[in-house]
Amino acid sequence: MTSTNLTETPLGLHFSEGSQGWLVRAEKQISYEVRFRDGIFRPEFTDLLEKAGGNEGTLRCFVIVDSNVDILHGDQIRAYFEHHRVDCSIMVVEANETVKDFETAARIVSEIDAFGIARRKDPLIVIGGGVLMDIVGLVASLYRRGAPFLRVPTTLIGLVDAGVGVKTGVNFNGHKNRLGTYASADLTLLDRRFLSTLDRRHIGNGLAEILKIALIKDATLFELLEEHGPTVLDEKFQGVTAAGEQAAQSVLHAAIQGMLEELQPNLWEAQLERCVDYGHTFSPTLEMRALPELLHGEAVCVDMALTTVMAFLRGQLTERQRDRIFAVMSALELPSWHPILDPDTLAHALQDTMRHRDGQQRLPLPVGIGGVTFVNDVTPQELEAACALLERLGDARVPEHGRRRDGESRQTSGASAA
Amino acid sequence: MTSTNLTETPLGLHFSEGSQGWLVRAEKQISYEVRFRDGIFRPEFTDLLEKAGGNEGTLRCFVIVDSNVDILHGDQIRAYFEHHRVDCSIMVVEANETVKDFETAARIVSEIDAFGIARRKDPLIVIGGGVLMDIVGLVASLYRRGAPFLRVPTTLIGLVDAGVGVKTGVNFNGHKNRLGTYASADLTLLDRRFLSTLDRRHIGNGLAEILKIALIKDATLFELLEEHGPTVLDEKFQGVTAAGEQAAQSVLHAAIQGMLEELQPNLWEAQLERCVDYGHTFSPTLEMRALPELLHGEAVCVDMALTTVMAFLRGQLTERQRDRIFAVMSALELPSWHPILDPDTLAHALQDTMRHRDGQQRLPLPVGIGGVTFVNDVTPQELEAACALLERLGDARVPEHGRRRDGESRQTSGASAA
Ligand SMILES: NC(=O)c1ccc[n+]([C@@H]2O[C@H](COP(=O)([O-])OP(=O)(O)OC[C@H]3O[C@@H](n4cnc5c(N)ncnc54)[C@H](O)[C@@H]3O)[C@@H](O)[C@H]2O)c1
Ligand SMILES: NC(=O)c1ccc[n+]([C@@H]2O[C@H](COP(=O)([O-])OP(=O)(O)OC[C@H]3O[C@@H](n4cnc5c(N)ncnc54)[C@H](O)[C@@H]3O)[C@@H](O)[C@H]2O)c1
Repeated sequence: MTSTNLTETPLGLHFSEGSQGWLVRAEKQISYEVRFRDGIFRPEFTDLLEKAGGNEGTLRCFVIVDSNVDILHGDQIRAYFEHHRVDCSIMVVEANETVKDFETAARIVSEIDAFGIARRKDPLIVIGGGVLMDIVGLVASLYRRGAPFLRVPTTLIGLVDAGVGVKTGVNFNGHKNRLGTYASADLTLLDRRFLSTLDRRHIGNGLAEILKIALIKDATLFELLEEHGPTVLDEKFQGVTAAGEQAAQSVLHAAIQGMLEELQPNLWEAQLERCVDYGHTFSPTLEMRALPELLHGEAVCVDMALTTVMAFLRGQLTERQRDRIFAVMSALELPSWHPILDPDTLAHALQDTMRHRDGQQRLPLPVGIGGVTFVNDVTPQELEAACALLERLGDARVPEHGRRRDGESRQTSGASAA
Repeated sequence: MTSTNLTETPLGLHFSEGSQGWLVRAEKQISYEVRFRDGIFRPEFTDLLEKAGGNEGTLRCFVIVDSNVDILHGDQIRAYFEHHRVDCSIMVVEANETVKDFETAARIVSEIDAFGIARRKDPLIVIGGGVLMDIVGLVASLYRRGAPFLRVPTTLIGLVDAGVGVKTGVNFNGHKNRLGTYASADLTLLDRRFLSTLDRRHIGNGLAEILKIALIKDATLFELLEEHGPTVLDEKFQGVTAAGEQAAQSVLHAAIQGMLEELQPNLWEAQLERCVDYGHTFSPTLEMRALPELLHGEAVCVDMALTTVMAFLRGQLTERQRDRIFAVMSALELPSWHPILDPDTLAHALQDTMRHRDGQQRLPLPVGIGGVTFVNDVTPQELEAACALLERLGDARVPEHGRRRDGESRQTSGASAA
């Protein structure tokens, strides 16, 4: 029994006298739903309770809420579960990149233990941004080897990215998402209304992941961002004007559709050449080293700016295309440069990501706007040249602007951050 | 889109205007091999290196070895990897139920980080008992959301149970395996020679899990145990005599075959009525409460003794069958009673396990020898009656004997236990 003929064997249990061993083959099917529902806490909407457990008429679930979301939307959340007489516990958790770790996950596990949930019936419901969804997704996949869970993303990154795939994770040892699982939530509910309370910088942050999808596969989405990016940023996707509403809907739909098209055939990442990894080659190192200065999407944007320049230098993008990309980044108030960038850091980051890509670079680079190719021949010289050109073209706007915002958000979460 | 028609939808990505949402459906195939290979460290055997990573001619892997196994077999292990010029790091870990926790897992992750492994190529190789395999299996499934791993079980429980399925886990908050995953090793290599250094009590411990398979599905295996149990225990499955060799082979083969037949169609436990859960209803609580006095298989055996009595009191077993079962337990030097048993503890344990079985008892009970049924109507009165009868019939032999042995094994692992 060699590895080659193993994969041709049918599902089941096979004993071979010859090799004195068994081959076990099995198949797992998963399915999950991602659904738009604005105003999920209005009493007439029961989407959130669809999967709730409990016995004979009672509903039971364990709810985990981001502490900033709790300040802004907590009353509404509590009122909803009270209205529906749900037997639930609401745990408030401070969530940001610096506490995206196993300790936070373990605290959640302890609270779930204290509350007690039936293994397959009583779901976890996470209401928060990408950080909290990633942590709770991990908890859900580990708790008794898998508890049901529902996601309610409250940030733009959550709505278009972290909330629609199956990846969970926490940082470990200074490495981004070093520990994680693939676990599908039973249901994700997308409610744009949350974005009304999100600060402007975090809207831009989410727009970076949308720009990623545009650049590697959707020229129409790119044009939408060129034309309406500043509007949806100003209006925070709330559709203040008719044009803004139309743009908000189109951008969200196209971004999620594009993302899911890439994820669905490759949910467990059997294929390591993933175009949705665009912007995610150098950024994990940049994000962790600059922590908390660069947000996730901002680090991704700096990476996209660098790789845009690399593609330009390779002749895969025209100067005009390159400049249109930089113009959109700038209009979305995203950074395309950061002082931490230098050829050594970039080489180190590439090295680390190569381990994650099983020893090869598999670097996605744009080909025109809306196309992508994977390369494996990047040299330190190329990184140096790209870095030098980017220093001239790029714009470090957000980190500065970030420092100011940072002060603000520190105030908000001051009490719990202690 | 209701949950009912979701499951009828084909694989793929589906957007529905009506429900304003996407349905994502996908399928994952897994396969793994469990192979007998006595003397795996003999230089001519390359089974262990089959999945090794590295680049162009070099082999690379990260090896985790149980500290007691290292004392007894470490030289051989090191010589093997040196002989084959494998670029590897060998990490020695103390492993027993009291350190089966996330902290141990995290220490292993840190060492892997320091060594550096390519995501899909450089495997983890775990050489140890059920505890270390469960921990490393968890680490492997979490590290970058999944690293390849090979298992080399060195205990009898490992060979017939922990090493052949896909469950990983660590204890948390005093709860057995509260955190874990389903993750298949790429390859498990079964080498009986390890059992030669295992102490007698741990052979009995593994025989308990073999007895479980016999009781719920294999009357022939039960007869084998009746006839040859004491021989394989005395000979530690090393085939000292021809009859002992024959028995060792037959018992191991039947036990693993039976186990895999039950696991393969239900790898992710979609079905919660699992006959291999026999003996695992009350035992998780007993094992954790009596820690470190009762070994895993011993706690399972006490649970089987209790449920044997329950089945007898329900008329599902004759007195003669009941007595044959108790006689085998006794011949295998396994306990069928423990002073910790009382109706309250049992009721509490059942309650806890019901959460794990999604709110129902789903208690497997023997029907004759080799048959099983699941019941949901156990009352406190029934537990009380069974407990009273068991106190008269049962035998607390191993805990006592255990205390003595415990002293011995503490000596063995004295240095590293500090
Ligand atoms: N799993 C995936 O596939 C995936 C995909 C992309 C990103 N991510 C992860 O997501 C994380 C980034 O997500 P994020 O940007 O949502 O970060 P985040 O979760 O830290 O949220 C950002 C900030 O916004 C606050 N917040 C959340 N909702 C709010 C609201 N409605 N109003 C006001 N404030 C609100 C939070 O408290 C936090 O301070 C990263 O850790 C990244 O790795 C995961
Ligand atoms: N994942 C599963 O499907 C599964 C199934 C059954 C049991 N388990 C788990 O397995 C664990 C019990 O396994 P175990 O009984 O192997 O315990 P263990 O791993 O603690 O090993 C028992 C003792 O034997 C020592 N040892 C190991 N190999 C030896 C050898 N060859 N010679 C001498 N000493 C040796 C170990 O150091 C340890 O002290 C429990 O935690 C249980 O939950 C898991």
